[in-house]
Amino acid sequence: MSSSFGNLFRITTFGESHGAGIGVIVDGVPSGMEISLADIQKELDRRRPGQSLMTTKRKEDDQVEILSGTFEDKTTGAPIAMLIRNRDADSSKYDKIKHLHRPGHADFTYHHKYALRDHRGGGRSSGRETACRVAAGAIALKFLESKGIFIKAATTQIQDVEAKQWLEDEIENNPVRTADPDVAEAMAERVKSAMAEGDSVGGVVECRIYGCPVGLGEPLYDKLDAMLAKAMFSIGTVRGLTFGNGFESASLKGSENNDAMDESGFLSNRCGGVLGGLSNGMPIVMQMAIKATASIARYQKTQSVEGETSELRVEGRHDPCICPRAVPVVEAMAALTIADAYLLACTQDPHLLSGNT
Amino acid sequence: MSSSFGNLFRITTFGESHGAGIGVIVDGVPSGMEISLADIQKELDRRRPGQSLMTTKRKEDDQVEILSGTFEDKTTGAPIAMLIRNRDADSSKYDKIKHLHRPGHADFTYHHKYALRDHRGGGRSSGRETACRVAAGAIALKFLESKGIFIKAATTQIQDVEAKQWLEDEIENNPVRTADPDVAEAMAERVKSAMAEGDSVGGVVECRIYGCPVGLGEPLYDKLDAMLAKAMFSIGTVRGLTFGNGFESASLKGSENNDAMDESGFLSNRCGGVLGGLSNGMPIVMQMAIKATASIARYQKTQSVEGETSELRVEGRHDPCICPRAVPVVEAMAALTIADAYLLACTQDPHLLSGNT
Amino acid sequence: MSSSFGNLFRITTFGESHGAGIGVIVDGVPSGMEISLADIQKELDRRRPGQSLMTTKRKEDDQVEILSGTFEDKTTGAPIAMLIRNRDADSSKYDKIKHLHRPGHADFTYHHKYALRDHRGGGRSSGRETACRVAAGAIALKFLESKGIFIKAATTQIQDVEAKQWLEDEIENNPVRTADPDVAEAMAERVKSAMAEGDSVGGVVECRIYGCPVGLGEPLYDKLDAMLAKAMFSIGTVRGLTFGNGFESASLKGSENNDAMDESGFLSNRCGGVLGGLSNGMPIVMQMAIKATASIARYQKTQSVEGETSELRVEGRHDPCICPRAVPVVEAMAALTIADAYLLACTQDPHLLSGNT
Amino acid sequence: MSSSFGNLFRITTFGESHGAGIGVIVDGVPSGMEISLADIQKELDRRRPGQSLMTTKRKEDDQVEILSGTFEDKTTGAPIAMLIRNRDADSSKYDKIKHLHRPGHADFTYHHKYALRDHRGGGRSSGRETACRVAAGAIALKFLESKGIFIKAATTQIQDVEAKQWLEDEIENNPVRTADPDVAEAMAERVKSAMAEGDSVGGVVECRIYGCPVGLGEPLYDKLDAMLAKAMFSIGTVRGLTFGNGFESASLKGSENNDAMDESGFLSNRCGGVLGGLSNGMPIVMQMAIKATASIARYQKTQSVEGETSELRVEGRHDPCICPRAVPVVEAMAALTIADAYLLACTQDPHLLSGNT
Repeated sequence: MSSSFGNLFRITTFGESHGAGIGVIVDGVPSGMEISLADIQKELDRRRPGQSLMTTKRKEDDQVEILSGTFEDKTTGAPIAMLIRNRDADSSKYDKIKHLHRPGHADFTYHHKYALRDHRGGGRSSGRETACRVAAGAIALKFLESKGIFIKAATTQIQDVEAKQWLEDEIENNPVRTADPDVAEAMAERVKSAMAEGDSVGGVVECRIYGCPVGLGEPLYDKLDAMLAKAMFSIGTVRGLTFGNGFESASLKGSENNDAMDESGFLSNRCGGVLGGLSNGMPIVMQMAIKATASIARYQKTQSVEGETSELRVEGRHDPCICPRAVPVVEAMAALTIADAYLLACTQDPHLLSGNT
Repeated sequence: MSSSFGNLFRITTFGESHGAGIGVIVDGVPSGMEISLADIQKELDRRRPGQSLMTTKRKEDDQVEILSGTFEDKTTGAPIAMLIRNRDADSSKYDKIKHLHRPGHADFTYHHKYALRDHRGGGRSSGRETACRVAAGAIALKFLESKGIFIKAATTQIQDVEAKQWLEDEIENNPVRTADPDVAEAMAERVKSAMAEGDSVGGVVECRIYGCPVGLGEPLYDKLDAMLAKAMFSIGTVRGLTFGNGFESASLKGSENNDAMDESGFLSNRCGGVLGGLSNGMPIVMQMAIKATASIARYQKTQSVEGETSELRVEGRHDPCICPRAVPVVEAMAALTIADAYLLACTQDPHLLSGNT
Repeated sequence: MSSSFGNLFRITTFGESHGAGIGVIVDGVPSGMEISLADIQKELDRRRPGQSLMTTKRKEDDQVEILSGTFEDKTTGAPIAMLIRNRDADSSKYDKIKHLHRPGHADFTYHHKYALRDHRGGGRSSGRETACRVAAGAIALKFLESKGIFIKAATTQIQDVEAKQWLEDEIENNPVRTADPDVAEAMAERVKSAMAEGDSVGGVVECRIYGCPVGLGEPLYDKLDAMLAKAMFSIGTVRGLTFGNGFESASLKGSENNDAMDESGFLSNRCGGVLGGLSNGMPIVMQMAIKATASIARYQKTQSVEGETSELRVEGRHDPCICPRAVPVVEAMAALTIADAYLLACTQDPHLLSGNT
Repeated sequence: MSSSFGNLFRITTFGESHGAGIGVIVDGVPSGMEISLADIQKELDRRRPGQSLMTTKRKEDDQVEILSGTFEDKTTGAPIAMLIRNRDADSSKYDKIKHLHRPGHADFTYHHKYALRDHRGGGRSSGRETACRVAAGAIALKFLESKGIFIKAATTQIQDVEAKQWLEDEIENNPVRTADPDVAEAMAERVKSAMAEGDSVGGVVECRIYGCPVGLGEPLYDKLDAMLAKAMFSIGTVRGLTFGNGFESASLKGSENNDAMDESGFLSNRCGGVLGGLSNGMPIVMQMAIKATASIARYQKTQSVEGETSELRVEGRHDPCICPRAVPVVEAMAALTIADAYLLACTQDPHLLSGNT
């Protein structure tokens, strides 16, 4: 139940941070779609550690192997399995603190749920598993691209620095992955400053989905925003989510918040592209609050597995701000969700898959 | 797919605003649990229209009939079906505007997805269906109560008026269902003022869940916060959701955001009771942004089903602010989610159901 | 989990034999399909009790009410709920034996699983619930008809009398619903003879599905034959199932069992229309062994709920042979399965729904 | 959808006959269970090719690697992934016939469903994937063993030779895996004789499940027999299935077919251990008709992918009778189904997992 995501376009993942490797099976991909190893590796490279001073120094090249489901670089309709071996797992730092629950981590809760835990690097609860989401997401992105759907995420806030512009071509040009080049340096300074203190910082990531046909989402309980919400909160660091004008809507009147229309279509996009749980043809716009990385090199009070008061300092190698690496993960989870909603919608509208919308 | 919610504790609903009636099947309820019609009617009465000046004047007494699944006031393990007949459906107001897409409503998107639509009162997309959630939620609340789990929601903001206190005993004492009696009147004024203008207002609802054992939630994709997020965004008026300190976490450092522990347990609850996707034993705290009711008695620009520019004024009978009636709906969806997570967790921890935690 | 069947074309049922009523929600039906109350009632009338001397004398006219999901006699894409009230429930006969487990019934197993049981008429485990399957199946049959798919079942054996012909037009012309008019009378004699002894008899029902496009079924675990097998064994009286030449295949060589082809297609249909788990375009042919009705008016040894040896004679009103009434139930379950497989296949082949195969 | 089996104890498989390898993710395994590589390899060795003259000469040692989900030889509650590399894949024989649909195989149906096919060794539709079922089944068997549940399958018929005894200790002592040593040689002769003619033979496999507590199975649509039926027919070679006295029940009266009880329990087991869709505490007994291997070295008439009449002779390396190797596959699928039913039942009865039944 827990290791699968999606209904028809469906992933199942496995693997721990310091085990043999991590991987994913992507099921439900229509046959005949072109997909190459490079398509997938490209997205993984955007997520992998060690890209810049701002990310963990763990050296994983995250080389992916496709084990099944493609033949002569085309999908066959069979499940696509991908494997990424762990290379640079250094468990020594974790052995010293294996009896202590790291604050902000899943140690305490996993310990109580499963009694037994692979403590090395967080085991199953490690952010390392997001590589599987990105690998699978690359296939979903490819599928959506063929339907004219595109997804872009970017960092829009780090600590107190907020982006004022959305220039998509700039996102990959700065290490914090913001779409506003004017604040990129200030954002980077916040990260470096936290790093210098052995601390970390949080931020906001925004995601935009373009080109969705009208009608994706399945009322009443698989509304498109509900499906996306589940996807976003399945990412460990997401603490808040809004669509469109989000929490601002709480302060507005109906006359200020409704999106009026005329013959040309919607005159505003306050709803963020989802109306009545279905895509309305406008860009889907989501903002996610991303908490600061829990692992910090400062002393924190905690509890031991025996229930005693203790103190620990997490050494290891950690990202001082996870936003830049969260960007491809957010895109991947959005892509998997939209691909699933797309296939679900095909059972109502036969023209979707054939492209004659 | 779309009309069911939950994995093991599972509801399936049906019905349109102006059809014969609405109803729900609740499946997976353990046998031997006491449940009476009064338990369910009590919750429905909190949601039903016409409770105060602040709610729609549609007169539905929302009398529920239990069709199956109980025997001598105990659950038998069989599916529990409940039916609420529609009584005061007045479709005349809708016939006049059936060719126009009401701004902020699902008219446009349903029209494009299904080609055919029961336009009367919003049909399937009407908020009326939330009565089914509340009826089913009453059973979930009863189940959770037997496990020592309790849920309370309240309005914490209407337009610009914010609550400063959380006094649970006060919630049912004021028509806006706020837990802060000091601002109840100001909140009510905002609603009346909007109503006078033929307009509506939005707000924020907070929900607290007490008594969850440690370990509810199924990593990695049915994390408890992910399951709750899907539940909350399946409610039509929810536009934003946070857990614990939510969007504030974006501005904090790791050292400020992590919840430290000592031998007594957690020293703070910034994470809002969910850590690593699992309940951590602290109260679960969520805030939802609720948009202003889309139906307003003011002229709005819109599109007709033929694609032409038009204008409409929604007459009907509508809630000027949905927050007070959203409170029991939020509680119901939270209860259904936690009950489902509870049963899922039983497959790992046998002591949960027997109560020997 | 337990009260739903199907993935995309999905039913959820409720109700007990002697409760307020029984019903079903059919979810996933594409919008715009014509469906009338008469379409559904017609199928229910084929299943209802009291049709002939050969069926139980319980008088249920099984009048169905459509509660939702249609508008002006067309489906809207919303869930279709149907309700059948119980009228002629006489529980007095059951009160006398409520402490005894009826042999061949679910009494013993339900008693141990749920501790608590609605004993009246078998409660949830009663064959009465099959009316819900037939009502839902009528919608599936209508959907399949629009795709050129037709389903016919008939009794091919009662006790030792076997049918030698398959004349579909004859099925509704005799009370045992056999397709071989030459043995209809002999079959009826077997039933009457058992009835005279206060006993019952078993038989075989065959089902044929015509017009399936090639490729229905989802490898590897939702093979079409696996899906159909789950459907057939979900009917309480089915004890055995074969496809095509079935158990005969155990005695054959590969050269005798394979279906060869030439340019015109398959030269035989030993596989019964399913090859590699997918429909191959030939008629799908299944045979089901149907056990004799468990309720008999003869003394049988049994156990009481307290675990003591006892004896009982089931009075009530029961079918001496359930085959004739199993025929529409088998057709309904086959239709629901094929409709579900059809929608699943649409996510791979867009031409299915639009009819351009 | 298609590559997963099970609800709570759930497998997802991948891989083609001649690709990089095959594998499986097993999700939902409770934590703290001891499991070693040897436990799994032992079962795989019973299924692997090349065990005797009677099986295909393809040389795969089927060495399995556990990639995740265990720590210090115990399960952690995380998904368990296993990988088996393909070693001795020889695709040359398949290249010659890649434009021809092999009779009795999925070639024709996959070709029409997916347009594109990995033709090498049957690709995804190859029986090779059953190794994944066996690897996963080994974990399920281990889980069930800890609950006192045991599963045994054996060949009870090959062509016209039927077993008369059921001596479980004998099963692994003869190459056809029959429980009747008196007919083992005659069965082997039938296989060798077919092999000599370049042909193959079918048979019957019986499976017995001991020690199930009363109440496994979820009415009405996940009845235990329905779940097992889906599992059995998901095995490519199964053509028929019966429980208990199966097709014989068609000829019996109710008084002959019901299992009477007294204070000691059931006095017979004609129902085969499943009553009203729930396990009744008696051994569960199933018989499966297994068709002759479709690949034979004799000329057969067929169709080419272009639709023309042709002829082919399947060279490759194939099992002349699949029954002996089907035995561990049947056990594995039965084990996966019972383990899933067991976890589902825990949500009703908390004592199951803790063992205090």
